[in-house]
Amino acid sequence: MRTSVSSPSLSLLLLLLVGVLVTTLYFHQHPSSSNIPIQNLHSHHHGVHDSSSTVTHPLDPLTFRELAKVHSVLSAHYSPGPVPSVHSLSLHEPDKPLVLSFRHGVDPLPPRRASVVAFDSSSNRVHQLLVDLASAAVLRHDVDSRPSGYPRLTQEDLSRAMSTALGDEGFVAAVRSRGLDPADLVCGPLSSGWFGPEEAAGFRVVKIECYALGRGADRSPNFFMRPVEGLVALVNLDAGRVIRIVNRNREIPVDPGEDTDYRYSAQRSRPASHGLPVNPMSMEQAKGRSFKVEGGHTIRWAGWEVHIKPDARAGMVVSRARVVDPDTGEWRDVMYKGMVSELFVPYMDPTEGWYFKTYMDAGEYGMGMTAMPLVRLNDCPRGAYYMDAVFAGADGRPFVRPDVVCVFEKYDGDVTWRHSEALIQEIDIREARPKVTLVARTAASVGNYDYIVDWEFQTDGLMRIKVSLSGMLMVKGTVYRNTSQVPEQEDLYGTLLAENLIGVVHDHFVTFYLDMDVDGPGNSFVKMHMAKQKTSPGESPRKSYVRVTKDVAKTEGEAKIKLKLSDPSEFHVVNPSRRSKVGNPSGYKIVPSATAASLLDEDDPPQYRSAFTNNQIWVTPYNRSEEWAGGLLAYQSQGDDTLATWSDRDRPIENKDIVMWYTLGFHHIPCQEDYPIMPTVSSSFDLKPVNFFRRNPILGAAPYFEKDLPTCKPLASL
Amino acid sequence: MRTSVSSPSLSLLLLLLVGVLVTTLYFHQHPSSSNIPIQNLHSHHHGVHDSSSTVTHPLDPLTFRELAKVHSVLSAHYSPGPVPSVHSLSLHEPDKPLVLSFRHGVDPLPPRRASVVAFDSSSNRVHQLLVDLASAAVLRHDVDSRPSGYPRLTQEDLSRAMSTALGDEGFVAAVRSRGLDPADLVCGPLSSGWFGPEEAAGFRVVKIECYALGRGADRSPNFFMRPVEGLVALVNLDAGRVIRIVNRNREIPVDPGEDTDYRYSAQRSRPASHGLPVNPMSMEQAKGRSFKVEGGHTIRWAGWEVHIKPDARAGMVVSRARVVDPDTGEWRDVMYKGMVSELFVPYMDPTEGWYFKTYMDAGEYGMGMTAMPLVRLNDCPRGAYYMDAVFAGADGRPFVRPDVVCVFEKYDGDVTWRHSEALIQEIDIREARPKVTLVARTAASVGNYDYIVDWEFQTDGLMRIKVSLSGMLMVKGTVYRNTSQVPEQEDLYGTLLAENLIGVVHDHFVTFYLDMDVDGPGNSFVKMHMAKQKTSPGESPRKSYVRVTKDVAKTEGEAKIKLKLSDPSEFHVVNPSRRSKVGNPSGYKIVPSATAASLLDEDDPPQYRSAFTNNQIWVTPYNRSEEWAGGLLAYQSQGDDTLATWSDRDRPIENKDIVMWYTLGFHHIPCQEDYPIMPTVSSSFDLKPVNFFRRNPILGAAPYFEKDLPTCKPLASL
Repeated sequence: MRTSVSSPSLSLLLLLLVGVLVTTLYFHQHPSSSNIPIQNLHSHHHGVHDSSSTVTHPLDPLTFRELAKVHSVLSAHYSPGPVPSVHSLSLHEPDKPLVLSFRHGVDPLPPRRASVVAFDSSSNRVHQLLVDLASAAVLRHDVDSRPSGYPRLTQEDLSRAMSTALGDEGFVAAVRSRGLDPADLVCGPLSSGWFGPEEAAGFRVVKIECYALGRGADRSPNFFMRPVEGLVALVNLDAGRVIRIVNRNREIPVDPGEDTDYRYSAQRSRPASHGLPVNPMSMEQAKGRSFKVEGGHTIRWAGWEVHIKPDARAGMVVSRARVVDPDTGEWRDVMYKGMVSELFVPYMDPTEGWYFKTYMDAGEYGMGMTAMPLVRLNDCPRGAYYMDAVFAGADGRPFVRPDVVCVFEKYDGDVTWRHSEALIQEIDIREARPKVTLVARTAASVGNYDYIVDWEFQTDGLMRIKVSLSGMLMVKGTVYRNTSQVPEQEDLYGTLLAENLIGVVHDHFVTFYLDMDVDGPGNSFVKMHMAKQKTSPGESPRKSYVRVTKDVAKTEGEAKIKLKLSDPSEFHVVNPSRRSKVGNPSGYKIVPSATAASLLDEDDPPQYRSAFTNNQIWVTPYNRSEEWAGGLLAYQSQGDDTLATWSDRDRPIENKDIVMWYTLGFHHIPCQEDYPIMPTVSSSFDLKPVNFFRRNPILGAAPYFEKDLPTCKPLASL
Repeated sequence: MRTSVSSPSLSLLLLLLVGVLVTTLYFHQHPSSSNIPIQNLHSHHHGVHDSSSTVTHPLDPLTFRELAKVHSVLSAHYSPGPVPSVHSLSLHEPDKPLVLSFRHGVDPLPPRRASVVAFDSSSNRVHQLLVDLASAAVLRHDVDSRPSGYPRLTQEDLSRAMSTALGDEGFVAAVRSRGLDPADLVCGPLSSGWFGPEEAAGFRVVKIECYALGRGADRSPNFFMRPVEGLVALVNLDAGRVIRIVNRNREIPVDPGEDTDYRYSAQRSRPASHGLPVNPMSMEQAKGRSFKVEGGHTIRWAGWEVHIKPDARAGMVVSRARVVDPDTGEWRDVMYKGMVSELFVPYMDPTEGWYFKTYMDAGEYGMGMTAMPLVRLNDCPRGAYYMDAVFAGADGRPFVRPDVVCVFEKYDGDVTWRHSEALIQEIDIREARPKVTLVARTAASVGNYDYIVDWEFQTDGLMRIKVSLSGMLMVKGTVYRNTSQVPEQEDLYGTLLAENLIGVVHDHFVTFYLDMDVDGPGNSFVKMHMAKQKTSPGESPRKSYVRVTKDVAKTEGEAKIKLKLSDPSEFHVVNPSRRSKVGNPSGYKIVPSATAASLLDEDDPPQYRSAFTNNQIWVTPYNRSEEWAGGLLAYQSQGDDTLATWSDRDRPIENKDIVMWYTLGFHHIPCQEDYPIMPTVSSSFDLKPVNFFRRNPILGAAPYFEKDLPTCKPLASL
């Protein structure tokens, strides 16, 4: 590891090697392995790939060329002054009716437009612009001079915060006061949350914390495991100065740890594991893959057609999910748009260096901006199709991040349906059908944590949305080396993972935006409530049964759902105007799996800002300005523009174009197995057809026969 | 389909084609494709297979030869009288200390013994015997003359019940009164539950219901979709006579349905689906599979060693699960024994023909007895290893059911851990590790329903237990052909699936016995309770955080857990005497996922009998007689011998050999997609190491490189 090079990073933890040159931080100007200027794209892309340079669908993201054009429009628009810092620049999606009516290959594309969010720190103004590509015109330019929140931090912001701290004599003195050499540290810019005007009023703040790289043989890229506990610099990002330095807990050592380096290249010296070796496996198809990609982003597979694209904030956006009806051949709408809307990660330690760690990863850092190229063969299986992201930097110029999304088919030996006649052996019914699905994946590395988000499509019409967590814990230094040393009344706020290291308890809440359009936009949200019904005396030998009652939510207030095992419902999004032959409304249901609810006080500032986690499910009427559950401007937001505040208007939602929101939660009490890198933990939820199809749509699926499967040989024998 | 042949079957529905000859029902005498006499075993078994004829492990199931010997011991023991009907005959597992101390290849096997449960219907007595194989001695013979419940029904019981009904003039007249020809019917023997002494006192009863096969082109093996609604015969099984005939709802037609035949052979005439074809996939390994099988039942894979066997009642038993510590090479105990203990399936319709449908599938029918041979390539992937079951029939004679359990490795493109440095691009950290697991599977076809049970083992020490449901719904005939015809105040107790067919609401509760031995038998159950802690004024800018408090359950009463999203805990089984270097006790936690709680009244007879579903988790002290949550004698049980009654003793469980019980529940409101056969629905729970390993045990796992993966070609090109 070279220490002389810049290393901006972010999020739960965004990091900077000391000695940064701010000028190297514009990665679109200084491409590394992860960001590639357009002229190198073709040589880079071996194998399956699309460079996303043509637009064939109204929802296709802005291309490199289009982004460059927006940049020149902005330059001209602001000329002779400078363009404010660009925090978001992406396709302004055409209005929904235009997209819904668009016929591929028949209609011309709707006008291509860009949405821009920029910030002028000198005047503390947020600019929102709408740029028309064809006319090179700025159609709208709104300026908000008193924002209650700010846009996502840019790379420039992050590096500026870090260089401000490290250029501050007091901070450097504090580092040295702990016997540390700044050259051996990695420092990270942390979002500061919002805890009232004392810390920040009228400007943006970032907190800087540092980690030790270690020295000599102890040097490890897993600096996350070596916090300099209790040292925090509060930086006024806009003024470029340190406001406050906290330097507590100097008695806590920066422990060198053991074997924290997780890189494969560092494993050579490790003793062999005592188990049996596991031979590598691969999912193989004799006839090759069975999905088609049109225009880079439209995926067709089995009965599905879906548009998938990377997004700087959401990570990945899934649009226009449609299935073909196997009985009629009709293409039927299921979901107009689905994505991660926000991610709330509160840590459960109220002390000085920790209370503010209450991240909103999508709105503060960006799930796409932090999505690095997927590792071929390891993040995604052989044969996957990869999509590049084309994003804009703070100066408005485009860059390409390759392999941000992968798409692949999956078969794991599961069964999609089966039946054997247990004892009618003469009929000899032994029917089973293997299950093959299609997965679209992205993985964000928001500082220490890695979030893998999968959208999985099944042949039976089900969509499974899965979030997997890995990466490194955010750990806390401590004087204790054994739990026996901890006084009984003392709360560690976590688990002792190793000598001098605590894994602090925290939660993850991933809130999904799910614009369901079941057979079109006119949908209702129906609770199918299950409850004990006692029988009347003499009615039945049974004293009770479970009775299902149907409850159509009239307004948003009736669709705020807290899940309860003892008081369960199914939750259907139905199209009341489309009924099956026997009269059931066409629907999809949301099927939660393991999840967690936020336990914080609703008045606690982080919870108030992330009030979208107060319920597991919400339903709102479609409103194109309501996509980001924590507000468009989430950084230092004060909670006045969240899903909770929108929903408090209690608007009608019956037989309307509605959006469902679901929060997938995780409580995380760390354990030693999470050290020094965490085995993946996953949970998911399903969107599942319910009386949508006339009957099982995969009744006619074929079983496998030996002749269908590939013939494989070890390399040596071919 | 031939109608002249017998077709005993069972459960939710056990079926009999009219014209049965009772003598053909002993399938060990009349082997079909599913049950094979020993002399044909070798010719039958192509491919990977073990015939389980040798015993190398104290827990290996009784072999064919051993079972035959038990049969001869029983014959001699009862001579000159007949041997009562054998309802259960399996290995009497040696006492736990003997098994734990057994050293493979060093110690002689502990004495091989058999447990026998027999029933003499003429005297209404249950016999329990313990037979020693070596000495050919009956070591114990207990007779219970007033059982509150009865053993699992045998094939003979089922066929006798059906032939009794179909031999009854009144019942045949009732069939004809509905315009039906008995020759076109399939009838099934249903367990009757227990609703007080009015129906049955001192004898066993079975209820018989019938289904139409259809005629001509309408003929379908999916008779489940054609109920003869309202016709029920109550049969005194022991006296062999019909007690009561209910013949209601004659106005409800037996609808021929459409396209209900799900067999592949029936799909030829179906129009092609409109989606793209999905090419078959296979999981392939260039170096072949990486698990080893010793003695037919001991599986070694990665860091795991585990003993797996089929079981007539539980379906599959997983024993002696141990993992190797990657740091030390020490083999460490995790779980002594895990299995499905009982399965409770109450239907939610209190009317005459339905109220009693409250099955206890393991105790009434047997999850292994109803497990048919797995379909190669479709129930399990290519390359799976298959285990046969050797069970005993009602006459005590052994038979072989092939391919009841399969074991295979799984890779689906998932990631076992990963990290990318989002923006420290110069370090270029892009580490990801593919996830390969080992799965052991069995599938029971309990009448209409199919239950797939998977035990999955991960390299990081996690065990995932998954239950998947498929097969056919239990449906109810109705006069309605459209929901618009249903009067508003009328409760259908389900969903109209097709003309004249209701899918009745029901639940499934799968209760698992989990004898955890984390680093040995001395374990405690610890609740890690998470709750909001408000901060004191001035303590922190935060108003709240989540505080974890540790609560060790002293007695059974403190370990009855109802899961609550708003009041969560983690549940650890720890070994208080084994602490890590930093002082944490070694543990495994149970991690629930989607589940459902029973909503029935605790005093409702079915719920009282299945009171083991009153909580999601229970913990009891180990007691070898407490394995079956609904009691050893579950048929017509009255709820006086269940997990709930044992646990009411409130025995000490701290630092004891303890057993954890977990109930995985499903609410099922049927939908049209479940017709005529259900797409698989799954849920799972995990047993996961928590401070068991010093650190992530798979830190040293290798990534894939292209050279590791197999080279595969379509058949034609090789």
